[in-house]
Amino acid sequence: MPETLTAAAFAPFGTVIETAGAASLPINDGTTTRFHALATAEPGPGGEAIVSIFRASQWPRPVTIRGLERHPLGSQAFFPLSAEDWLVVVAEGARPGAADLRLFRARGDQGVQYRPGVWHHPLLVLAERQDFLVIDRQGPGENLEQIAVEPGAVIESAEPGCPFVYANAKRCPGGIHRIKAYGVRGRGRQREVRKYRVWCTLKGDHAGILSSHEGKQRMEFYPDELPDELLDWAWDSGMVEY
Amino acid sequence: MPETLTAAAFAPFGTVIETAGAASLPINDGTTTRFHALATAEPGPGGEAIVSIFRASQWPRPVTIRGLERHPLGSQAFFPLSAEDWLVVVAEGARPGAADLRLFRARGDQGVQYRPGVWHHPLLVLAERQDFLVIDRQGPGENLEQIAVEPGAVIESAEPGCPFVYANAKRCPGGIHRIKAYGVRGRGRQREVRKYRVWCTLKGDHAGILSSHEGKQRMEFYPDELPDELLDWAWDSGMVEY
Repeated sequence: MPETLTAAAFAPFGTVIETAGAASLPINDGTTTRFHALATAEPGPGGEAIVSIFRASQWPRPVTIRGLERHPLGSQAFFPLSAEDWLVVVAEGARPGAADLRLFRARGDQGVQYRPGVWHHPLLVLAERQDFLVIDRQGPGENLEQIAVEPGAVIESAEPGCPFVYANAKRCPGGIHRIKAYGVRGRGRQREVRKYRVWCTLKGDHAGILSSHEGKQRMEFYPDELPDELLDWAWDSGMVEY
Repeated sequence: MPETLTAAAFAPFGTVIETAGAASLPINDGTTTRFHALATAEPGPGGEAIVSIFRASQWPRPVTIRGLERHPLGSQAFFPLSAEDWLVVVAEGARPGAADLRLFRARGDQGVQYRPGVWHHPLLVLAERQDFLVIDRQGPGENLEQIAVEPGAVIESAEPGCPFVYANAKRCPGGIHRIKAYGVRGRGRQREVRKYRVWCTLKGDHAGILSSHEGKQRMEFYPDELPDELLDWAWDSGMVEY
C-alpha cells in the first residue's frame, strides 16, 4: 500500500510542495495568498533552473519497478497541472534494491522536489494522462544515473482493489482499471449516481465466473455498495466514464 | 479587447510557457513527453530560484488598473494549476502610463515568465479562485518596485459581453458575471444543455427593462442563441452553475 505523502515522511528524499501547513502571506491588495518558498531549486554550480512541462501517460500495468534514476548535480521538482492523484517511488541508499523502495500516493494538489542524488522512479500517473510543471537543472556535466532494480517490484495498489468477492468469501486480488457510472445527475459533491459498473485488471467483468447474467450483476454496484474512498478516488482520478 | 497570448506578441516582456510549438522529446521509456526548457529562471547574482504557490481570487469588478509592479533583480514565472483562462497586463518603458498597457488573455494551459524589470500587474484571474505555481527569486536586495497608473485603466472585457439587446438594437455594454445552465446532461464537448440564464455586470437580469416575465425571458437563451466562444469561455472558466 502506498504511504500518504507528508513532509515528514518525505524528508529523507526532498520537499513536498503543498499549501497545507505552509507559511503564507496576503499580497496584491489582499486578493492573493502567497504560500512562500515551498521549495528552493538547487541547480548546482554552473547550472541553471529551467521550467519544463512533462506530459505523462500511464506506465504499463501491472506497474513493475525495474529501475530508478537520479540526478547528482541538481534538484528536480514536479507539480501536477491537473487534480488527479499520482504515485511517487523513491529509495534511500547508494545502491537500493526492491526492498528499499518507498511508495507514496500524492494528491493532485501536491508536488515534490527530489534533492540532488535521490533515487526515484520516472513519473507514475494514475490518470490516463497528466501534465506536470517540472523545475530542474540545465548545465554542464553528466546529471543522469540509472540503476536496475532486481527483481522488479510490482506495485499492487496503483488502482483500488477489485470489489468482487468469490463464493468462498475471498476477495479478488485485482484492481479496478475502469468504472462506468449510470444515471449521473449534477456534479462534484452533489453528484447523484444510480449505479456503477466496474472492470478488474485480472478478470475483466468477472463474467466467466458465474452465469453471464449473474456475473454481470456481481460487478454492478449501487453507490452505497462501494467504499466512499474508492468512489472519491475514481472521480478525482478522472477514471469514471458516464 | 485582450490580445491572444503568443510567444511572438509577448516577446518584449518575457516567455510564454506552453507546449504548443515547443521542442519536445520522449523520455521514461516513451511514457512521457518532455517539453524542454520552456523558461529559464533568472534569479540574478546572489539570488536563488524558489517555488511558491499563489492562490488568487478575483480583482474587484470592474477591473481597474491603478498600478504596476516589477522585480528588477529576478524573473518571475506563473503557471496556472487549473484550466481557467486568466489575464496578463504588462507594459514597456521605464515609467508606463495607461496608454502603454498591453492586455493578454492567457489560456489555462499557458504560463508566462516576466523578465527581470518588466512592469506587470498582479494576478488577474477570471475564475472565482485560481492557484498558480510561481518560480521567482529569493535573495538579498530590494526586488520590488511599484508605479501608479494614472488615470486608472478599466479593463472592459474581463468578462464576455452581455447578450442583451435593447429595443433600439443597441447591445448592453455590460459583461456576463454569472451564468446558469438548465437541463444539463453529460460533460465536456458532449455536454447537452437545454437553456442558459445569464446575469449582467451592469443590469443584473435586466428585469426592470421589460415586464418581469418578458424581461426574464430576454436573459434566457437556448444554446444556439449564444456564441460558441462565450459558452466555451463560460464552461472553461468554471463560471457556469447547474
